[in-house]
Amino acid sequence: MKRIVRATVLVRPKAGILDPQGAAVENALGHLGFSVSGARVGKVIDLEVDAADEGAARAAVEKMCEQLLANPLLESFEVTIG
Amino acid sequence: MKRIVRATVLVRPKAGILDPQGAAVENALGHLGFSVSGARVGKVIDLEVDAADEGAARAAVEKMCEQLLANPLLESFEVTIG
Repeated sequence: MKRIVRATVLVRPKAGILDPQGAAVENALGHLGFSVSGARVGKVIDLEVDAADEGAARAAVEKMCEQLLANPLLESFEVTIG
Repeated sequence: MKRIVRATVLVRPKAGILDPQGAAVENALGHLGFSVSGARVGKVIDLEVDAADEGAARAAVEKMCEQLLANPLLESFEVTIG
């Protein structure tokens, strides 16, 4: 029997990969008077997965990351279940 | 004395707010054969903040969210320190 499992995926630019959006955020925060020495911007994706259990949900979400949600050359991903 | 404090901000579309990017992700995952009944896409922002301590860092990051990182009409934010 399948049920709905909530999963959260964080997709971040890998270290060393240029992140223009992060640079823009850092710059804008500086102009607003905040003391920030680094900013990186990625995506958070909240999913409701139909799966038999949490293990199956995690396996499915990792496949989703590899196939669609993250670009493995440029981005790393982190999956949290529940 | 100030030191560098790491902070992570999650910015998500509020419930009830249209999220076309999330709808596109849900649709694409369905086409790839995954059973997903919901997808919402937001931003993760990793910051290095110059602050006296973690409390001061949290206060600064919450101000950053209100002033720049999140649109309070459309988005909610969640700050994690450390």
